[in-house]
Amino acid sequence: MEILVLHGPNLNLLGEREPDVYGDISLDKVNERIQETARDLSINVHIFQSNSESELIDKIIENRNKVSGIVINPGAFTHYSIALRDCIAGVGLPAVEVHISNIYNREPFRHNSVIAPVCLGQITGFSVDSYVLGLFALVSHLRGQ
Amino acid sequence: MEILVLHGPNLNLLGEREPDVYGDISLDKVNERIQETARDLSINVHIFQSNSESELIDKIIENRNKVSGIVINPGAFTHYSIALRDCIAGVGLPAVEVHISNIYNREPFRHNSVIAPVCLGQITGFSVDSYVLGLFALVSHLRGQ
Amino acid sequence: MEILVLHGPNLNLLGEREPDVYGDISLDKVNERIQETARDLSINVHIFQSNSESELIDKIIENRNKVSGIVINPGAFTHYSIALRDCIAGVGLPAVEVHISNIYNREPFRHNSVIAPVCLGQITGFSVDSYVLGLFALVSHLRGQ
Amino acid sequence: MEILVLHGPNLNLLGEREPDVYGDISLDKVNERIQETARDLSINVHIFQSNSESELIDKIIENRNKVSGIVINPGAFTHYSIALRDCIAGVGLPAVEVHISNIYNREPFRHNSVIAPVCLGQITGFSVDSYVLGLFALVSHLRGQ
Amino acid sequence: MEILVLHGPNLNLLGEREPDVYGDISLDKVNERIQETARDLSINVHIFQSNSESELIDKIIENRNKVSGIVINPGAFTHYSIALRDCIAGVGLPAVEVHISNIYNREPFRHNSVIAPVCLGQITGFSVDSYVLGLFALVSHLRGQ
Amino acid sequence: MEILVLHGPNLNLLGEREPDVYGDISLDKVNERIQETARDLSINVHIFQSNSESELIDKIIENRNKVSGIVINPGAFTHYSIALRDCIAGVGLPAVEVHISNIYNREPFRHNSVIAPVCLGQITGFSVDSYVLGLFALVSHLRGQ
Amino acid sequence: MEILVLHGPNLNLLGEREPDVYGDISLDKVNERIQETARDLSINVHIFQSNSESELIDKIIENRNKVSGIVINPGAFTHYSIALRDCIAGVGLPAVEVHISNIYNREPFRHNSVIAPVCLGQITGFSVDSYVLGLFALVSHLRGQ
Amino acid sequence: MEILVLHGPNLNLLGEREPDVYGDISLDKVNERIQETARDLSINVHIFQSNSESELIDKIIENRNKVSGIVINPGAFTHYSIALRDCIAGVGLPAVEVHISNIYNREPFRHNSVIAPVCLGQITGFSVDSYVLGLFALVSHLRGQ
Amino acid sequence: MEILVLHGPNLNLLGEREPDVYGDISLDKVNERIQETARDLSINVHIFQSNSESELIDKIIENRNKVSGIVINPGAFTHYSIALRDCIAGVGLPAVEVHISNIYNREPFRHNSVIAPVCLGQITGFSVDSYVLGLFALVSHLRGQ
Amino acid sequence: MEILVLHGPNLNLLGEREPDVYGDISLDKVNERIQETARDLSINVHIFQSNSESELIDKIIENRNKVSGIVINPGAFTHYSIALRDCIAGVGLPAVEVHISNIYNREPFRHNSVIAPVCLGQITGFSVDSYVLGLFALVSHLRGQ
Amino acid sequence: MEILVLHGPNLNLLGEREPDVYGDISLDKVNERIQETARDLSINVHIFQSNSESELIDKIIENRNKVSGIVINPGAFTHYSIALRDCIAGVGLPAVEVHISNIYNREPFRHNSVIAPVCLGQITGFSVDSYVLGLFALVSHLRGQ
Amino acid sequence: MEILVLHGPNLNLLGEREPDVYGDISLDKVNERIQETARDLSINVHIFQSNSESELIDKIIENRNKVSGIVINPGAFTHYSIALRDCIAGVGLPAVEVHISNIYNREPFRHNSVIAPVCLGQITGFSVDSYVLGLFALVSHLRGQ
Repeated sequence: MEILVLHGPNLNLLGEREPDVYGDISLDKVNERIQETARDLSINVHIFQSNSESELIDKIIENRNKVSGIVINPGAFTHYSIALRDCIAGVGLPAVEVHISNIYNREPFRHNSVIAPVCLGQITGFSVDSYVLGLFALVSHLRGQ
Repeated sequence: MEILVLHGPNLNLLGEREPDVYGDISLDKVNERIQETARDLSINVHIFQSNSESELIDKIIENRNKVSGIVINPGAFTHYSIALRDCIAGVGLPAVEVHISNIYNREPFRHNSVIAPVCLGQITGFSVDSYVLGLFALVSHLRGQ
Repeated sequence: MEILVLHGPNLNLLGEREPDVYGDISLDKVNERIQETARDLSINVHIFQSNSESELIDKIIENRNKVSGIVINPGAFTHYSIALRDCIAGVGLPAVEVHISNIYNREPFRHNSVIAPVCLGQITGFSVDSYVLGLFALVSHLRGQ
Repeated sequence: MEILVLHGPNLNLLGEREPDVYGDISLDKVNERIQETARDLSINVHIFQSNSESELIDKIIENRNKVSGIVINPGAFTHYSIALRDCIAGVGLPAVEVHISNIYNREPFRHNSVIAPVCLGQITGFSVDSYVLGLFALVSHLRGQ
Repeated sequence: MEILVLHGPNLNLLGEREPDVYGDISLDKVNERIQETARDLSINVHIFQSNSESELIDKIIENRNKVSGIVINPGAFTHYSIALRDCIAGVGLPAVEVHISNIYNREPFRHNSVIAPVCLGQITGFSVDSYVLGLFALVSHLRGQ
Repeated sequence: MEILVLHGPNLNLLGEREPDVYGDISLDKVNERIQETARDLSINVHIFQSNSESELIDKIIENRNKVSGIVINPGAFTHYSIALRDCIAGVGLPAVEVHISNIYNREPFRHNSVIAPVCLGQITGFSVDSYVLGLFALVSHLRGQ
Repeated sequence: MEILVLHGPNLNLLGEREPDVYGDISLDKVNERIQETARDLSINVHIFQSNSESELIDKIIENRNKVSGIVINPGAFTHYSIALRDCIAGVGLPAVEVHISNIYNREPFRHNSVIAPVCLGQITGFSVDSYVLGLFALVSHLRGQ
Repeated sequence: MEILVLHGPNLNLLGEREPDVYGDISLDKVNERIQETARDLSINVHIFQSNSESELIDKIIENRNKVSGIVINPGAFTHYSIALRDCIAGVGLPAVEVHISNIYNREPFRHNSVIAPVCLGQITGFSVDSYVLGLFALVSHLRGQ
Repeated sequence: MEILVLHGPNLNLLGEREPDVYGDISLDKVNERIQETARDLSINVHIFQSNSESELIDKIIENRNKVSGIVINPGAFTHYSIALRDCIAGVGLPAVEVHISNIYNREPFRHNSVIAPVCLGQITGFSVDSYVLGLFALVSHLRGQ
Repeated sequence: MEILVLHGPNLNLLGEREPDVYGDISLDKVNERIQETARDLSINVHIFQSNSESELIDKIIENRNKVSGIVINPGAFTHYSIALRDCIAGVGLPAVEVHISNIYNREPFRHNSVIAPVCLGQITGFSVDSYVLGLFALVSHLRGQ
Repeated sequence: MEILVLHGPNLNLLGEREPDVYGDISLDKVNERIQETARDLSINVHIFQSNSESELIDKIIENRNKVSGIVINPGAFTHYSIALRDCIAGVGLPAVEVHISNIYNREPFRHNSVIAPVCLGQITGFSVDSYVLGLFALVSHLRGQ
Repeated sequence: MEILVLHGPNLNLLGEREPDVYGDISLDKVNERIQETARDLSINVHIFQSNSESELIDKIIENRNKVSGIVINPGAFTHYSIALRDCIAGVGLPAVEVHISNIYNREPFRHNSVIAPVCLGQITGFSVDSYVLGLFALVSHLRGQ
């Protein structure tokens, strides 16, 4: 089973960026945790970070017949990228939206996700664990179908 | 480690209630999965369901010095029980909000949680797995502190 | 045919409470009219009043396999008890929402019912007759199926 | 006792129009039910359908000294005809607003009635029975005065 | 100088309709005052009342080359008849909107006029005098051009 | 193939009315273009203009079994005539909404159409060509079914 | 009969200020027109201009037992001076709100008057004539009482 | 004179709960201050705390003929319990709403009270003193009648 | 201890102004009650009334090093004077906002105070007692520090 | 005559993506229809699809002196790409916005176009025909200038 | 070249007032920086501070023919003084709005300026430098005309 | 001192694009002014224009350890690019937002900046001078730290 793991804009700043909000773990460390989780779940993950909406969309479209599902932290695109939403709905793959911080105790504009309605579900607030839980949730869903 | 698991209103109808939304698994079966997860995690869970806002609040207050955290599916109280929110904030225990269905692809009034801002995080949309993931997230948080 | 008739919060104050809005007939008298109507319709009614959201929910759940439908005056719960709404939707029984006063010529916050969308219909403004008409409507619906 | 029964716009399409919303009974059949009800209640009804706001208003004004009350299904005028509202308030006759479908589980713009605040009450969602119940409610009110 | 004076819906009920809001003077008496004012101003007035939006529009279009301006009490159409607004803007005649009652101390929905932005101005709250003042204002404007 | 072409309120003022918004072509000229287009498409068109909401509704109902579809410029009714909307939905004919001006660069209240959701589609901003394109779109749709 | 005529902020700029909106007549000329009108009506007027909210309020309170009514152009205070509103309501004198420009075809924030609900009525859009008409309206009201 | 003093949900956590918001005084100490104040005022107080909306309502209804007034800190129910509001209005007793914290410098959802409009008045922000002041205000009102 | 007591606009009309809302006691009598209360509390009060926003601000700034706190009835400024709010926050003195009437059962625009968030607390609805209670609250706070 | 035809994000999924919304025709087939139409109209079209906002903007800027107009289906960018809007306004070329589906009977967030106000007009809901009609509209406009 | 520099309400508290927001520099020091800047720019500045809306307005009107432009920090008036806005627009002088703090990262009600739309531009957030930059901007504009 | 100067989308059209809004100076000329200013300030500037949100983000991240601050004209991204906002906040560099036109007298959607709250301040409306002033403000801030 192949899973696409996507990191949205500014996640390459992890560890360095607003550590009181996002913690001090770097993206490389996050990816190591994702790889470990993948090994535990006996799946392959393809990890991709981009600050570009279109690169994320292109990546999803390219991989739409190669992967069984998507785990995505859309970063700021959560709140306005209808194009990303349409892409996830368009390819028809099960997706899980994850967030490192709890977006519901931050600024009001972060409480709305345009992505969540086209996903299986959303996991928010558990730091790096959000990714680990997202992979579990997706694989459990895929194996349970 | 002792964890309080709370089911809010109408969750005693699980399996029977709107199965296209909530699935056909009964609350007893959900609780078995929770107990299994607890064993896997080497923790004790105290499970309680009520249709009453005050019974849920009383239960949290009673257990505030006995448990290390809370996993709660607030059901409809998600959207208006500020009393429940204030209780969770008041006792100061880490809490995880879980939902069986993806509340973000349902009616607009279900998109807002008054509970989420006082929780560690929220997990929504993964059927019974939402509880399992919620326990993992909470225990990981508690052990990581 | 068994029908559950529910009176929500403060309806035990009927006759005494704001008589210019709700009239001067007591709840006992209302219940007599309901019983008379039941006899005319050759049905049995189970009447229950509570100021407690959870007691109303519990009553519905307990009776969900014993009655054929519900006539409910949700009182103030009309405007915020999503738990009551979910319960009515959850048990899948036909329900009729009734109101003694015309909620549409009162304060704006009384114009919205969270209950109405999961009911067969709503009858508002006809004093005690609202209950009588509600029973007629429900029985006619059940016999016409 | 003379009662005016008014059908607003597009109700001449009944039976044919969106049968999943409005049922498959024609306006003639509805009118027969209304006439039967009138006989049962020992009253006379004057029935009038129009797609024209002004014809409905003119009809009310013409009959304001001839009838004791009005049962009206304002159709789409429910949501915007302040002129119809002002007419009902202006003639000072007791009026009952009825709807075949449950307007509260349809599009949000159908949840607001500009007519209801100047009526005795509103009955919504009981198919043809809404008219029957409306006549009962109005006659009971008039006889009870 | 010829002026068109239009009375909108329900103004034929004047004197009889809600006298605490609109006073107890009949439309005939209002029209006498308008005719007297016309004589004082040495102009001719053409007075027309209708409960029909289209009849008011048709009347304006018919007279667009015969009159120099319009005094209109749009009644309830004030609040929603964009067709009437477009007609007044379309014929390009100076128009004065008048109201018998002070619409700004009534229900909030009466505070907005879709007609006023395409008129010279608005006069509201002076009972029959609103028409008299409206004629003065219009004639003064026309003579001052 | 018979098509009903409807012009809403104030379109009889075309050519004369606000020429900077609507152009200087008269309704007769528009109708000639529509007839030419009909000949090119080998269809018959029935053209009707009215300033009356009910006449437009009556015309649609009368012709509902005689025509295959509707091209309609609802004029100001675009923004509030739910009755016209319900009529189009009620008769179940494919309809195309057209506008001479681009309603999206005019006043905000013109940006919302209550008609568009029950039509095949909408064409706005192309002067007389909007009608021509509307006929093409409708005929193409009907022939493609 | 003594009448207080009040000019609000920036009206001392009349004639000079935005002449396309307010015309090119100076405040002195406006006051002459007001004095002429007063002579025609056989009344005395006390005219006062201030850019200060408190001076306008003080002036009303000082004169509350000396004058029979108020004609006021509140200028920008129209839209926010609840203190001025409370003052007019507090002294209980009949008041007429006047505006030189048509506030309903200007910026949206100018469409709301906090003053109008406590006045007899409002006259807007007729340049200097607004004052003349306001005096007529007030005197007619006072003489008609 | 007998007065009912009610503490709403989570007030049994006082002293322990969010001390930066609510202070570090316990509910027992608050009640002692209330009893002292009662002695000073020569009245009897009946004090009751509950996390349950219906218990608060039941307590008011039970005591409606035994007490002369109510001092209530509705806690979180301030913001949504229309049932509690209706109960206070229904029994017709003078009531004073009190809050320990200043609800107007907290989250926006805490700025609205559904209870205040049916009370004599509201006292907010003075820690335990809010109760003391509330008793003074109520007793002064009752003695002044 | 020196305390500044401020009365905002139109409070010089007390006793005379809308007595059904504000009662029939004059400002002089109110000030006597305030002086009596000051004697009881062994403090000095400096009382000042103005209809001018800037005079109130100037008075606060002048006295900022002379007084220990402020009791203010901002009158209509409650709802819009951000300058007064900034002044209170700027001088950093503890302040208590008081109102004679219950602003929460009056017009909706009176439900919002821009002043309250920078005060210790707010007391509303107890007629003259609001000032007495406000002094008690402020002195208790200052002595308790 | 050279025309630029732009396809926005996810349109490369056409035929495969949500076929109940967008139909089952592929982008290649759409482009064939566009080329055929171009031949019929004796024009050249330059077709470009991108999931990237900046590539679409760059393409417009590059071609601004080479083409006479633009036909654009902005896909999801319709609802938020103010940058694309500013680009179209900035180059000053006539543009036609087209949509395959009827955006007005989909989710509310799809009812608003930030692009439409800077275009000649909009064509929505006619499947592939929307492009064909868009080309006709644009060419007719250009030839009619 | 003469320039009017205006400081609005509470700016006389600078240095003392909320130093974490406004810094600890006094108004006198600000004015010295302004005078230095004036010397560098070879202009004369007239500096005036007032807590009174009308004094600011009067000052602008008095100086309207003496100065070439205005630099204004409207303080709290920024958010509601339409009178000040109208004055700036009325005198037709170029004006620059400046703020010491960044109003866009403070409370939401501070994000809206009623003054900015009638100014050349706005400079916000640079402490005393905002005034210096404002003078530069204004003088550059005036010299560039 | 190294400063990054960023130009957002469509700014490469400067001089050519809507000259009545943006003036007729080209981006090259703007950049010359920026370079001159840099020389005057004895700093180095790195200037970059892109129509791509991700290129701007990437540029900021790349340079985050090389520059001391940012001057950015975000163009249309001002209003929706939360990703750009998060990037500026993420790298923690002081930033100044500048605009050529006064965004507060343009369309309402241009009045909101999602970027401003994470900047030092904003300068809007001074044509090319906005950049010059932005550089001054930033350098003054950096030197003053």
